[in-house]
Amino acid sequence: MGGGGGGEGASGGPELSTDNVKGIVLALLSSGFIGASFIIKKKGLRRAAVASGVRAGVGGYSYLMEPLWWVGMITMIVGEVANFVAYAFAPAVLVTPLGALSIIVSAVLAHFILNERLHALGVLGCVMCIAGSVVIVIHAPQEQEITSVREIWNMATQPAFLLYVASVIVVVFVLVFYFSPLYGQSNVLIYTAICSLMGSLSVMSVKALGTSLKLTFEGTNQLIYPETWFFMLVVATCVLTQMNYLNKALDTFNTAIVSPIYYVMFTTLTILASVIMFKDWSGQSPGSIISGICGLIVVLSGTILLHVTKDYERIPQSRN
Amino acid sequence: MGGGGGGEGASGGPELSTDNVKGIVLALLSSGFIGASFIIKKKGLRRAAVASGVRAGVGGYSYLMEPLWWVGMITMIVGEVANFVAYAFAPAVLVTPLGALSIIVSAVLAHFILNERLHALGVLGCVMCIAGSVVIVIHAPQEQEITSVREIWNMATQPAFLLYVASVIVVVFVLVFYFSPLYGQSNVLIYTAICSLMGSLSVMSVKALGTSLKLTFEGTNQLIYPETWFFMLVVATCVLTQMNYLNKALDTFNTAIVSPIYYVMFTTLTILASVIMFKDWSGQSPGSIISGICGLIVVLSGTILLHVTKDYERIPQSRN
Repeated sequence: MGGGGGGEGASGGPELSTDNVKGIVLALLSSGFIGASFIIKKKGLRRAAVASGVRAGVGGYSYLMEPLWWVGMITMIVGEVANFVAYAFAPAVLVTPLGALSIIVSAVLAHFILNERLHALGVLGCVMCIAGSVVIVIHAPQEQEITSVREIWNMATQPAFLLYVASVIVVVFVLVFYFSPLYGQSNVLIYTAICSLMGSLSVMSVKALGTSLKLTFEGTNQLIYPETWFFMLVVATCVLTQMNYLNKALDTFNTAIVSPIYYVMFTTLTILASVIMFKDWSGQSPGSIISGICGLIVVLSGTILLHVTKDYERIPQSRN
Repeated sequence: MGGGGGGEGASGGPELSTDNVKGIVLALLSSGFIGASFIIKKKGLRRAAVASGVRAGVGGYSYLMEPLWWVGMITMIVGEVANFVAYAFAPAVLVTPLGALSIIVSAVLAHFILNERLHALGVLGCVMCIAGSVVIVIHAPQEQEITSVREIWNMATQPAFLLYVASVIVVVFVLVFYFSPLYGQSNVLIYTAICSLMGSLSVMSVKALGTSLKLTFEGTNQLIYPETWFFMLVVATCVLTQMNYLNKALDTFNTAIVSPIYYVMFTTLTILASVIMFKDWSGQSPGSIISGICGLIVVLSGTILLHVTKDYERIPQSRN
């Protein structure tokens, strides 16, 4: 990618390319915005509930009149856009795990602003997420320079990645048409697996589209290629399916159960897809790859810990 | 150290010297033996209690007649010796954190052999300890080759390390003579801080002594130097002080509180001492050092998690 200076040592030294740095900064900003948006929206909901006496949870819509709720909504959109752009600059192996930091931001802000006390083990979870993220960033792979959407197309149509896509589609079909009707309402893994599998394809197509748009803004118009429009179609399909089943999962099961399972499966599958499609690990030393995987395991463990212990504290308190 | 081949990449590649490999294997064996010894001893205690009808906790000594208890005791001694020898081969930055694995071994064995169910978060703690240990091993520094106890003496008498030793002694004196009588029985940090501070000096002197003995066994007699005997004296003094205050801490407070605090302080101070004395981090890239520190933080967090959640499960069960 353009101007990505700084040769990468075979063992994944600390030298990050300028594109990776941009991607990291965008991913961190995104986590900050998304994390903060939850708190701002909640503060808005509370204020609206006080003003009208009716809570959103029991059917009130007064929050739509509350400016603070809209500020939260806009903050969230800004965060999602930053996340989208981050994928255009840095590998998914780097951007996806950093998403865990939004959970920390919202947990810490909730502690100080909403007075939702953080459990001591939750603090440990935060520390782990940060330590794991640092290890991931240090061992981040460099991306190959991409100059046209056609190159991404070639990556997406290589046999290994087509095999991955085919497997995902088959598994999703089986889950949607066979397992969902039977166990969808009783087993939390069905809906979350569908979301996560589609999510890994979403991120890949978002990355393809993001890179095309980035190249277009840089002056080499990619909108003339049908591949760009095809990726746009894939993004829409995958994101809509993913959102649909995420909502089903959240409607059926407790958020505290769905969130960590979804996060772990989604992140793992996305990284698998990215490693297959973008060959993120080629040219990296075994030490770097293993360190990166350990960093990922730590972030995933930290996220689980934070979610599980969040629930510990909520039970005795009133939920609002 | 002798025959430590394999040049280390500036960024801490996966190539480990043969001495580091020996040190790692010894440290892992040590953790296995020490972890297993707890279980064997406990099994012996139970058997003795069944045979005599009196428990060790209420004053019985029948366990001394139980062969299984002695097998456990010998296993522990073998483990401690392996740990001692490991320090002669690999840096403390590498050996000390791997000690956490003994906690995993005993937790896992307790789960299967003693039927002490491991809490789900305890499993997460185990996973973290392993992931953190892998990161530490990958980024382990290479040791300088030491050919005589005089070299270690020079390291121990460099101004920076003398300053560390002086600070430790002053702080330990203040804690022992001023804070212990006042707060020793109420604040868990007093005794554990004394243990940990002395412990960091114990490990440094153990390492000095171990290296001297290793060189002696390899044919270059170090017992002719007074420095070797001086280190022996320091080992005895430090280890005895450390053990004395560890027993006081365990007598006064709950093991589940003392163990993680002690482990975190002891490991951190030992690594600090080792970094000052042996300059473990010189020649390492910032990325490697930061990765190593993150690995350490993860191991420490995992240990805390394992200890804290162990207590969660014990409360409803009978303690034996």
